[in-house]
Amino acid sequence: PDLVSISDYERYARHFIRDDIWAYISGGAADEHTLAENLQSFARQPIYNRVLSDFSTANTRTRILGYELDSPLLLAPVAHQRLLHPYGEIATAQAAAAMNVPLIVSTLSSVALEQIAQHAGQWWFQLYWQPQREDNQTLLRRAIQADARAIVITLDAPVSGVRNRAQRAGFRLPDGVREENLVEFATSVNTAAEGESVIFKHFMKQRPSLDDLKWLREQTSLPLLAKGISHPEDAKALQEIGFDGLIISNHGGRTLDGVPATLSLLPAIRIAVGKDMTLLMDSGIRRGTDVVKALAAGADAVCIGRPQLWSLAVAGALGVAHMLRIFQEELEMAMALTGCATIDAISQDVFADRF
Amino acid sequence: PDLVSISDYERYARHFIRDDIWAYISGGAADEHTLAENLQSFARQPIYNRVLSDFSTANTRTRILGYELDSPLLLAPVAHQRLLHPYGEIATAQAAAAMNVPLIVSTLSSVALEQIAQHAGQWWFQLYWQPQREDNQTLLRRAIQADARAIVITLDAPVSGVRNRAQRAGFRLPDGVREENLVEFATSVNTAAEGESVIFKHFMKQRPSLDDLKWLREQTSLPLLAKGISHPEDAKALQEIGFDGLIISNHGGRTLDGVPATLSLLPAIRIAVGKDMTLLMDSGIRRGTDVVKALAAGADAVCIGRPQLWSLAVAGALGVAHMLRIFQEELEMAMALTGCATIDAISQDVFADRF
Amino acid sequence: PDLVSISDYERYARHFIRDDIWAYISGGAADEHTLAENLQSFARQPIYNRVLSDFSTANTRTRILGYELDSPLLLAPVAHQRLLHPYGEIATAQAAAAMNVPLIVSTLSSVALEQIAQHAGQWWFQLYWQPQREDNQTLLRRAIQADARAIVITLDAPVSGVRNRAQRAGFRLPDGVREENLVEFATSVNTAAEGESVIFKHFMKQRPSLDDLKWLREQTSLPLLAKGISHPEDAKALQEIGFDGLIISNHGGRTLDGVPATLSLLPAIRIAVGKDMTLLMDSGIRRGTDVVKALAAGADAVCIGRPQLWSLAVAGALGVAHMLRIFQEELEMAMALTGCATIDAISQDVFADRF
Amino acid sequence: PDLVSISDYERYARHFIRDDIWAYISGGAADEHTLAENLQSFARQPIYNRVLSDFSTANTRTRILGYELDSPLLLAPVAHQRLLHPYGEIATAQAAAAMNVPLIVSTLSSVALEQIAQHAGQWWFQLYWQPQREDNQTLLRRAIQADARAIVITLDAPVSGVRNRAQRAGFRLPDGVREENLVEFATSVNTAAEGESVIFKHFMKQRPSLDDLKWLREQTSLPLLAKGISHPEDAKALQEIGFDGLIISNHGGRTLDGVPATLSLLPAIRIAVGKDMTLLMDSGIRRGTDVVKALAAGADAVCIGRPQLWSLAVAGALGVAHMLRIFQEELEMAMALTGCATIDAISQDVFADRF
Ligand SMILES: Cc1cc2nc3c(=O)[nH]c(=O)nc-3n(C[C@H](O)[C@H](O)[C@H](O)COP(=O)(O)O)c2cc1C
Ligand SMILES: Cc1cc2nc3c(=O)[nH]c(=O)nc-3n(C[C@H](O)[C@H](O)[C@H](O)COP(=O)(O)O)c2cc1C
Ligand SMILES: Cc1cc2nc3c(=O)[nH]c(=O)nc-3n(C[C@H](O)[C@H](O)[C@H](O)COP(=O)(O)O)c2cc1C
Ligand SMILES: Cc1cc2nc3c(=O)[nH]c(=O)nc-3n(C[C@H](O)[C@H](O)[C@H](O)COP(=O)(O)O)c2cc1C
Repeated sequence: PDLVSISDYERYARHFIRDDIWAYISGGAADEHTLAENLQSFARQPIYNRVLSDFSTANTRTRILGYELDSPLLLAPVAHQRLLHPYGEIATAQAAAAMNVPLIVSTLSSVALEQIAQHAGQWWFQLYWQPQREDNQTLLRRAIQADARAIVITLDAPVSGVRNRAQRAGFRLPDGVREENLVEFATSVNTAAEGESVIFKHFMKQRPSLDDLKWLREQTSLPLLAKGISHPEDAKALQEIGFDGLIISNHGGRTLDGVPATLSLLPAIRIAVGKDMTLLMDSGIRRGTDVVKALAAGADAVCIGRPQLWSLAVAGALGVAHMLRIFQEELEMAMALTGCATIDAISQDVFADRF
Repeated sequence: PDLVSISDYERYARHFIRDDIWAYISGGAADEHTLAENLQSFARQPIYNRVLSDFSTANTRTRILGYELDSPLLLAPVAHQRLLHPYGEIATAQAAAAMNVPLIVSTLSSVALEQIAQHAGQWWFQLYWQPQREDNQTLLRRAIQADARAIVITLDAPVSGVRNRAQRAGFRLPDGVREENLVEFATSVNTAAEGESVIFKHFMKQRPSLDDLKWLREQTSLPLLAKGISHPEDAKALQEIGFDGLIISNHGGRTLDGVPATLSLLPAIRIAVGKDMTLLMDSGIRRGTDVVKALAAGADAVCIGRPQLWSLAVAGALGVAHMLRIFQEELEMAMALTGCATIDAISQDVFADRF
Repeated sequence: PDLVSISDYERYARHFIRDDIWAYISGGAADEHTLAENLQSFARQPIYNRVLSDFSTANTRTRILGYELDSPLLLAPVAHQRLLHPYGEIATAQAAAAMNVPLIVSTLSSVALEQIAQHAGQWWFQLYWQPQREDNQTLLRRAIQADARAIVITLDAPVSGVRNRAQRAGFRLPDGVREENLVEFATSVNTAAEGESVIFKHFMKQRPSLDDLKWLREQTSLPLLAKGISHPEDAKALQEIGFDGLIISNHGGRTLDGVPATLSLLPAIRIAVGKDMTLLMDSGIRRGTDVVKALAAGADAVCIGRPQLWSLAVAGALGVAHMLRIFQEELEMAMALTGCATIDAISQDVFADRF
Repeated sequence: PDLVSISDYERYARHFIRDDIWAYISGGAADEHTLAENLQSFARQPIYNRVLSDFSTANTRTRILGYELDSPLLLAPVAHQRLLHPYGEIATAQAAAAMNVPLIVSTLSSVALEQIAQHAGQWWFQLYWQPQREDNQTLLRRAIQADARAIVITLDAPVSGVRNRAQRAGFRLPDGVREENLVEFATSVNTAAEGESVIFKHFMKQRPSLDDLKWLREQTSLPLLAKGISHPEDAKALQEIGFDGLIISNHGGRTLDGVPATLSLLPAIRIAVGKDMTLLMDSGIRRGTDVVKALAAGADAVCIGRPQLWSLAVAGALGVAHMLRIFQEELEMAMALTGCATIDAISQDVFADRF
């Protein structure tokens, strides 16, 4: 009835989700400045309405890493989806398949990746680096076998951030929701000695080094992306060791509080890596106009995070599909009104001076 | 009693108007950033108080497209006015005639244009392009026959925008309110094939092409204006094909959310089209000082949108006339205090540095 | 008890003052943007704390138009004070005398100027121009006879502005509060013909022309100031015809809504008139630090408006005296902490970069 | 339970602290603009997330004035701690010792410095200048005897500021809380003559002159710091007379309202004094990211003010220790995510453009 925009799903979802889980999925790090700025950055960026462009061959198709997509939309990797719905990632995969939108499956999915793959259309695998190199190899092999079309390694969460909202709500993964892809691996043991910093001597030891990333690059010929990049120099360094693409992201404001919105980070990173490298982005995409702004700022496509969870909680696979339909329609509307008949036509020219 | 400003009419109107209709008329597109910015842009633009000008021959008269006006005020085209009052556009026309303010009649009026014309003083016709060229010819012929003095074609609403507020309220045109000018035309059939984009393959196909606009120019020797222009290049292109004037407008924030306020768009457009082209503007005019600011930024006159509806709902023709009187008095007050004794004297010099 | 700052007087006064009178004295013009900006301008201007200056001969004394003042503080002309307290301007005059602060008496005082003068220390006369030149002469003669030490003509209120808050509250001067100085003059008759603009053809005809101001200059050898100046060119023009000083003011936000705060107007006006012309200012002074900021921006002294009324309503003459004491102490505190041991030492150097 | 951040301690403390004491410790001067800006300055300063740095030898150690510290954290001097907890400064000292964080003991401590010293680890003495030079000598001698490792003289509070919040709450030091270090000294007598300014002729006479500061420098070979510096010229002047370090501070917004946040003051002061002078800072530090930002802006270490009091009130020594643990962990987290493996690695490069 009055479910006509992404924010309506957010509003409804509030009533379908337990308080602690709500705090976990909605919350950001620390004082949630970045979380708020993710939305504000889009809100304060004006765009022109154009009225004379030719729309005879208009469409939203685009090519990303060699794959033809109907639209520059993907589903961002989001862990633990059975928190929101009994079918969890399976429902999301069905919706993505139905809507022909690529799905990025998280290492921390609550359904085994093979099972998700059975219901998915095009899907990519998001890797959280495992302390043992061979465990990464195992995950990769499983993903490739289950027909993943790209590998995304997330780099911005070596520690999980100061998640005060979730902590205050006392959130813990409930019984019955497990990280199914990891059950066979040894549980990680704290490597910090008594009195040493757990953060520096345990967590930061477990994250991938530059060497690990080079090694990873050699393990697969699939397109390889790094997620969670906010600085042009990190972008260039990853390009140099052979990454095919980057996902510019602040993890939806969930890791370091104070990172700028990705919209404001994109232009400098696009300049740093040149026009050919594939740049996806996420964090705060809620409207068709947000997609247009992200692309105008330098992205090739965008990933959708929390809206997956809200729509999944409200109406399962159907909800996720409807949520994607809203994005598609709003994107078309935004292109129609900004005078951009194709994805390639979207450029910095759509931007007007900041309010 | 305490109906002394335009915002008082808004406040009162709330009690006279059904919730869904209120949502339809008050709402803007999507998150209503442009709607808010329309007001904010005026609020944050400071102006100087001047104390030494000569006011011996002061007046608010101006010449627009060859017509002498008492004041640089017009009524913007607003559809479906019988939603607000049983006499609808007729009451508005009577008030406009009484106050000697030109009225722009919408294609989507809920009273036939010929009937409105009988009660109107100077009136202009606003055309929404019809898919069949001959239907446009019919509308034009009817308007000219009923003594329309100018033709305004609205270009910024080929799709009606993401009107979430109205959607959430479940707004639909109630029985008994029809688009009277269009009843004889064939109802539009979706031209998008199964699975194709309705927006691109239906709506965007129906809007006027550049050729259609050239053709339109040839159909009449009346002054021809385009409404809904926000970009200098569109302004120039329309000037080149012979348009006499433009209405710089973001449709009151109702089409593309994110378009800047028209106040901030005017200076660049004035530079683009030169000092002779007629530039009207609308969106957010609520005070006499707003009129002065709009003219200082480059407009020749302004159009008033929603205040028509609020005053119509509260007190019919009398309300609309009173609303226009408030604007006239506030405009004189604003000119008196900014030291501008005539409309021509209003220039960028009235502006002080932004707060 | 908890009456320790000017805003405490405002808070308390609310309970001592009838709603319509409250609306009249507190309100500003139209949407009260200038009213709000008057406070905001001070709030957002940062200043440095200095710790090493020499305070051995510290004091707040200053010389204004040849008069030695204990402090750069004056009481602004405020009409109709018997609205707030039965003794009205007499109580204010007593407090000003006790605190040795010059008082500017309004043309529209609710006690005759001769009576106020009996209770006052140093006082100046504020003239609202009367349509008949000889009436101005009469007022001037009376003021000089009663020992006024300077004449201030207010120029920014030829029309009283769009005072919506007072209008909505239905404010009218109650029986028993009269403009005592004007009772003998003919009541002004609307000079606008039927259908003509009352604003242009009546009010703007009655305000002083440049010739009237030159004539006024010739009528007295007392220091002559113009009040309500916001533009550097008006400032220069008045300097050229022989005015000794200016009061930079937006009338406490009560005339033209949208005029910048006087703090932001001062620097350019100081540059325009040079360092020797006397510049007072008012509008929004509520703290000792505001006084320091005003002087740093170019003023020689400041006038206090509404705080007079609040303190008068709460505690009569005692209240006004206490209010002035708070200003004096806060000013000394502000000078102590900004390292300015004398009024002359206050310069733009106290300003830090805007937040 | 939900005590996971510094602001949680603030929230809890509200329930443990009497209203007037709360007003005294939480409040700032006047309208508390500086108090608010202290937090806002950190909130609006964005920082980059970096993902490729080497953390193999990561640590938070630093060297301040010749002392090796585990972390660039100190406890700011805070008076009257027995207002918050029966053990007052003793509890704080115990926590600081346990966490190996230097403690700066106030002249106005409610426990005698010798007693505090017995429970403290490394501690410094903060001097409020006493009118009699010999009293300062006495305090210094006592501090040195009790093994103070540095002397900090506070210069920004010669008058205590316009503390309206505390005044309105009627705060007075309750019986049983005394300034234990000062009991033996003569109580200060107002030196202002009748009618003279108490601020200029009493308080400002009692603060240390430049000569006094030179004299003080000669009294001790311990590191000597000045606290409450906000202007580069004062910083240079103090450097020239031999001060070893400065604490850039606006006293937590408690003295002059309108002083900028210290974060914005640091860069210019660092340039003025060069890279070798020790610069500490305080005012508004509440997060690990704030510490990183302060160091990036030019500080060598930061001092923590009010959080001491909140945690002390909630849970005594344990609370203070836990509060310090939160800071340590958040600092490590912030360094991990900004890619700074050591304190030296923190530079202006962590800053992104302001939102
Ligand atoms: C509950 C939740 C779980 C997430 N899990 C993962 C994850 O497992 N891997 C990952 O790379 N990103 C994860 N993210 C981050 C998302 O991929 C994405 O960056 C973020 O949600 C985008 O911002 P948005 O939610 O504002 O759209 C998660 C985000 C949320 C909200
Ligand atoms: C209820 C409503 C109906 C409208 N109908 C039309 C219309 O039929 N044709 C048109 O060109 N503009 C239409 N507009 C836009 C107005 O002409 C005008 O651009 C807008 O209202 C100006 O902004 P304001 O309402 O802030 O003054 C409509 C606006 C509203 C609020
Ligand atoms: C109730 C009221 C009456 C006033 N009457 C006069 C007046 O008679 N003459 C005049 O020049 N200014 C008058 N003013 C303006 C003040 O002199 C002064 O410019 C203004 O109050 C300063 O702003 P503040 O109130 O923010 O301090 C009046 C202001 C108020 C609030
Ligand atoms: C209740 C209270 C008492 C204080 N007492 C002293 C003091 O005795 N000496 C001093 O130099 N600073 C004193 N300060 C200021 C602190 O040292 C420090 O500059 C300030 O608290 C830092 O800001 P923060 O509270 O925002 O962290 C005091 C601050 C508070 C809140």
